[in-house]
Amino acid sequence: MTTERHIMSAFDRDLETVQALVVKMGGMVETAIHDAAIALETRDEELAEDVRRRDKAVDELELQINEEAARLIALRAPRATDLRTALTVIKISTILERVGDYAKNIAKRSHVLVHMPAVESSGMALRRMSQTVEGMMKDALDAYIQRDAALAADVRKRDLEVDQMYNALFREFLTYMMEDPRNITACMHLHFIAKNIERMGDHATGIAEQVIYLATGELPEDARPKSDSVTRATLNEGED
Amino acid sequence: MTTERHIMSAFDRDLETVQALVVKMGGMVETAIHDAAIALETRDEELAEDVRRRDKAVDELELQINEEAARLIALRAPRATDLRTALTVIKISTILERVGDYAKNIAKRSHVLVHMPAVESSGMALRRMSQTVEGMMKDALDAYIQRDAALAADVRKRDLEVDQMYNALFREFLTYMMEDPRNITACMHLHFIAKNIERMGDHATGIAEQVIYLATGELPEDARPKSDSVTRATLNEGED
Repeated sequence: MTTERHIMSAFDRDLETVQALVVKMGGMVETAIHDAAIALETRDEELAEDVRRRDKAVDELELQINEEAARLIALRAPRATDLRTALTVIKISTILERVGDYAKNIAKRSHVLVHMPAVESSGMALRRMSQTVEGMMKDALDAYIQRDAALAADVRKRDLEVDQMYNALFREFLTYMMEDPRNITACMHLHFIAKNIERMGDHATGIAEQVIYLATGELPEDARPKSDSVTRATLNEGED
Repeated sequence: MTTERHIMSAFDRDLETVQALVVKMGGMVETAIHDAAIALETRDEELAEDVRRRDKAVDELELQINEEAARLIALRAPRATDLRTALTVIKISTILERVGDYAKNIAKRSHVLVHMPAVESSGMALRRMSQTVEGMMKDALDAYIQRDAALAADVRKRDLEVDQMYNALFREFLTYMMEDPRNITACMHLHFIAKNIERMGDHATGIAEQVIYLATGELPEDARPKSDSVTRATLNEGED
């Protein structure tokens, strides 16, 4: 896949090995996003527990990828584009580890929410949001493997949809809380879940930006344009 | 400072140059944390605007540090400990960039809060929390420059205090919201600010863990122990 530039070198072979680990890690994180949303919607405590437990493997894979990438750099002493490519591996695995933590956190909160009255319609809305983010994550990783800047640009665009879904949910939760104070605690947790999903979207966008950087040598000029869309009630952060 | 191991090499000289940039970036981020808290407490919109504006320079510095670190690796082809040290520069600058974003986000929310009734006592409690985190950040960076694992371990310990402050505030905000629904919107923003400060503490801890990794070759065994202290009302995340 990375052989267009020149004949398969020792660097390329090693890179493919470590990239295969990144793909594996990406698959695990996608599954975690998916299962965390299902566990939340169906109030499945066992599945939630499973998501939490499996995050350990994701964390270990990050360490392994970092070590392999460091070994690759030490052994092959790559320059220019190859060095940038090797460093991107580290950046992407850092992002994936964080997204795995968000999924774990959603699973933790769903344990808490099981013991509270359900807040109408929120489960479905959160799952729709989560599906969008799962698709973004998948495409961001495909774009990475294929060095496909167009697909990466598409991922960035879809993040605006996720932000809109988040803003709508934020307003919805506010009204539920104002209507009945007994909803407040549950809504605070649901709001955090929505925020975590929105942040996952930001992270998928972060991977897409790394792909654009790899493919074009530059980060997109308008990186994180949405951070300016501040209104009184909602505040769209993109802060991590 | 890094010459204990061997005589000052070309690598060490280059490393000092890029580490000086990290220290500069760290100073900018500490100031941002400080000013964001002051702007919030004193409702100083100009200072808040200033914090937002200055974050651009922090972002640019991160890119510069990444480039310098990549150049260092390409030029000197360091191995083993030196390579790990060079990679740590990238990790730490990524963390600092994120903390800068949190400070910016607090500044944004304080613009919004100016137009809402004040919530009693919250400003002081948030500032106390923020001062603790500012101190942690300062010590984490000092520990980094001195490769001081003991100081780094102390930073990690202080993160538990920050978590306790966050939990207390979370409960306080819940009661204000339940008492009077007109407090809900303001409390949601204040809660996010508290959460952002708590996350900054996590990030200072992340830097401390990198220092321990550099000094001892291993990440602390009990990394992020607090993530298990889940209660019904609060949920302590450590998710990023």
